[in-house]
Amino acid sequence: MKTHIAGSNATSIRFRGHDLVEELIGKHSFTEIFYLLTCGRLPNATETRVLDACLVTLMDHGWTPTSLITRLAYDSAPSQVQVGIAAGLLAVGDVFAGTMDGCAKLLAEGVGKDDKAAWCKEVAQAHRTLKKPMPGFGHPFHKPDDPRPPRLFRVAEEAGVEGRYIALLRQLSAAVDEVYGRHLTINATGALAALLLEIGMPLAIMRGVSVVSRSAGLAAHIAEEQKNPTARAIWAMVDEQIPYEDPPA
Amino acid sequence: MKTHIAGSNATSIRFRGHDLVEELIGKHSFTEIFYLLTCGRLPNATETRVLDACLVTLMDHGWTPTSLITRLAYDSAPSQVQVGIAAGLLAVGDVFAGTMDGCAKLLAEGVGKDDKAAWCKEVAQAHRTLKKPMPGFGHPFHKPDDPRPPRLFRVAEEAGVEGRYIALLRQLSAAVDEVYGRHLTINATGALAALLLEIGMPLAIMRGVSVVSRSAGLAAHIAEEQKNPTARAIWAMVDEQIPYEDPPA
Amino acid sequence: MKTHIAGSNATSIRFRGHDLVEELIGKHSFTEIFYLLTCGRLPNATETRVLDACLVTLMDHGWTPTSLITRLAYDSAPSQVQVGIAAGLLAVGDVFAGTMDGCAKLLAEGVGKDDKAAWCKEVAQAHRTLKKPMPGFGHPFHKPDDPRPPRLFRVAEEAGVEGRYIALLRQLSAAVDEVYGRHLTINATGALAALLLEIGMPLAIMRGVSVVSRSAGLAAHIAEEQKNPTARAIWAMVDEQIPYEDPPA
Amino acid sequence: MKTHIAGSNATSIRFRGHDLVEELIGKHSFTEIFYLLTCGRLPNATETRVLDACLVTLMDHGWTPTSLITRLAYDSAPSQVQVGIAAGLLAVGDVFAGTMDGCAKLLAEGVGKDDKAAWCKEVAQAHRTLKKPMPGFGHPFHKPDDPRPPRLFRVAEEAGVEGRYIALLRQLSAAVDEVYGRHLTINATGALAALLLEIGMPLAIMRGVSVVSRSAGLAAHIAEEQKNPTARAIWAMVDEQIPYEDPPA
Repeated sequence: MKTHIAGSNATSIRFRGHDLVEELIGKHSFTEIFYLLTCGRLPNATETRVLDACLVTLMDHGWTPTSLITRLAYDSAPSQVQVGIAAGLLAVGDVFAGTMDGCAKLLAEGVGKDDKAAWCKEVAQAHRTLKKPMPGFGHPFHKPDDPRPPRLFRVAEEAGVEGRYIALLRQLSAAVDEVYGRHLTINATGALAALLLEIGMPLAIMRGVSVVSRSAGLAAHIAEEQKNPTARAIWAMVDEQIPYEDPPA
Repeated sequence: MKTHIAGSNATSIRFRGHDLVEELIGKHSFTEIFYLLTCGRLPNATETRVLDACLVTLMDHGWTPTSLITRLAYDSAPSQVQVGIAAGLLAVGDVFAGTMDGCAKLLAEGVGKDDKAAWCKEVAQAHRTLKKPMPGFGHPFHKPDDPRPPRLFRVAEEAGVEGRYIALLRQLSAAVDEVYGRHLTINATGALAALLLEIGMPLAIMRGVSVVSRSAGLAAHIAEEQKNPTARAIWAMVDEQIPYEDPPA
Repeated sequence: MKTHIAGSNATSIRFRGHDLVEELIGKHSFTEIFYLLTCGRLPNATETRVLDACLVTLMDHGWTPTSLITRLAYDSAPSQVQVGIAAGLLAVGDVFAGTMDGCAKLLAEGVGKDDKAAWCKEVAQAHRTLKKPMPGFGHPFHKPDDPRPPRLFRVAEEAGVEGRYIALLRQLSAAVDEVYGRHLTINATGALAALLLEIGMPLAIMRGVSVVSRSAGLAAHIAEEQKNPTARAIWAMVDEQIPYEDPPA
Repeated sequence: MKTHIAGSNATSIRFRGHDLVEELIGKHSFTEIFYLLTCGRLPNATETRVLDACLVTLMDHGWTPTSLITRLAYDSAPSQVQVGIAAGLLAVGDVFAGTMDGCAKLLAEGVGKDDKAAWCKEVAQAHRTLKKPMPGFGHPFHKPDDPRPPRLFRVAEEAGVEGRYIALLRQLSAAVDEVYGRHLTINATGALAALLLEIGMPLAIMRGVSVVSRSAGLAAHIAEEQKNPTARAIWAMVDEQIPYEDPPA
């Protein structure tokens, strides 16, 4: 057994076949080396631009379970910044921010179909019948449309991606609206799934992109919490609004 | 009470006074927006280059407690990539990778002293007397010198930082060697502390930079674990090498 | 909205309608109050005995991902015992120790069927056809039989449970052996699922019983790690056995 | 290297020299086996009673950072009960619930002093001078007195502990009131530190007792959250009370 991610000896450190000190530090951005480590080679300009756009998009969304948890956990272990961030990241789960997996799986499957129109309709129909949420569609707050996907598609197209996953997602969107009889927005995680597939990010690690991205936003929440604490106020608020009562007999 | 990190309404999302969709996605890198969210303004080219260098440096270091934990946790909850990464990040603690806080605190204190030479000697002396490790100095594997600091200093100087924290760290290093009577390398977290102070990163969030950086490396370990699993082999190895034995009577 | 778990004022604390100081501390065991908080009433002697047996069973299993992670995380943040334990608990997931959910869901469904023999056969057949693991059956190390289930059944029966979930699990076991054409042991999580259903533990919280139980074992691993450290040796072992190599060109 | 916690072979599992199936399951409570695993031998009736009292005391305290985090994290990863509990446990830190370490260290040191009265006064004086909180004293809500310590002392004394740590804590309490010129209550974590020292629990694992205890309360919060969800309401409440605003120019 071997690992090909990183290794070191007394005088040098290697990342995927590159010398960290000689070849990478000061010559490549965080985003490029993130691509190198996860995908196995340095990205070209198109890939870098798309990955940067994806990483920027999910970095934060104001008050969410992730930022609430991070601030509460930080307040309880203020010497351990990593604990606050890691606690918040645990909420990048099946419900929020971690949901690009499902859409990516669909697109990866559909892209190989000959009759894409038929496939799109079938997929929409199946989700509707089973009352399963359409992954990558719908948003509780951004209505009628999530503002991020159109911008992400434009950035990717201008950066020069081939575009077949984006095209398929748009085709699926039309089918969804038809089958459901109303408009469901493509949401940010849906768009991100398409963009990450365009640049060859492995399916199974996609949620990891959300995690890396959100870790930066959570660090910012800790920086603000240090100056303007909110955790005790949140605690007091909940205590007042959801009081304890003896259970009914 | 207010938050100034991020907020949204039905049609737009704002990050620190900027419209995410109109002004940030596709126009700025992950590194720039990380700086915006934590420091409160978009960075200039110097600051971006230095922060990228810092983020690349700590992204991975091969087998460490962080990567071991991430792979073991991922293997136990393979549908939850965020759990594997968050578990590993919990080990960016007081012992490994999270240690730039201590050095940054020292440098932030020393930079205002009139007689820096005297201060450096005092600090080195005090740590030696109390047998406390000098934060930012020494490395278990990289001997005699950690290869990363010289490169980081050069990148920062070429990028145009003012350089007073780097200068102070070098001065401190000379004092350390003199006081201890042997050479102790400046290590990567020491150098990073100096660079992050140069670009105005708040002291209290510095460990957060390690956390964000390492999250990317841990995502890569999960990507590799998916293709070439190691977790079960690690488990078996430990089981064999550190067997259970009934306690002595 | 209200909560009925616990609340306090300046002079008293209430747990589910009971005064903590006057009625609970010193009068009831941990196991009894765990039942009170999760199930909403104090348990009778049967329920207490069964829950104690369940909690003891999963407390530890030597080297597992949970204990490995806890020791590695503790070594990185030795001042934060809760971090070591919490990191290990993240591995009580879909693969190890957290697997009683699936078996409990099956038993809860089957117990209402009129023709239980037919249902058992169908369930075994369906899992075999879909090549899905039978939840609650099979064990990688304990062969031909996991030694815990027979003991757990005996304890529960002697304690006076009604026994219909245990009976159903035994019936299912016979069907499994017949359908698969070979013997698959009932494993500990399968037996625990049956026992916890016998005492009315809510289905959705069953994995929580494993988590509580395992937290105690992980505390013990930290106590041992403090005296006889293994984390650095584990790290060195992996470094040697799974070395870094530049990726193939 | 060896481990003495637990081990297994194909047909049996051993905990600290005892056969799990033959000797422990159904014969000993969770609390007894927790003591066995952490302290290395089965407890006597005194020790069991005291440890049960300690474990019951900290199991929950209504809305706290731990329960808030657990409910928010559970809502984001509802299939992963362990994630919700582990996230909440990360907040058993230096600020809440994890604070018995400090008091235990003091008591362990003071118990060997010849002139305990002088030592108590010195310790109180030193904390007051340095404006450091007295570990084990004071409570934000329970005023003038935390109701739990007197009950815990009585339980321990009735159970038959030797009582020297409890006596020392009471002596320290008198000194604190005198030195501070006002009454500071002994709080629950202070009392627990004394009780756990009475029964020989290793100093370094004490916070682990809080963690195990609180894990049970957090499981109960998840059980309630499943029936009566609060996470979305908490989120909405914070969103409304602490709105985003563009940063001041």
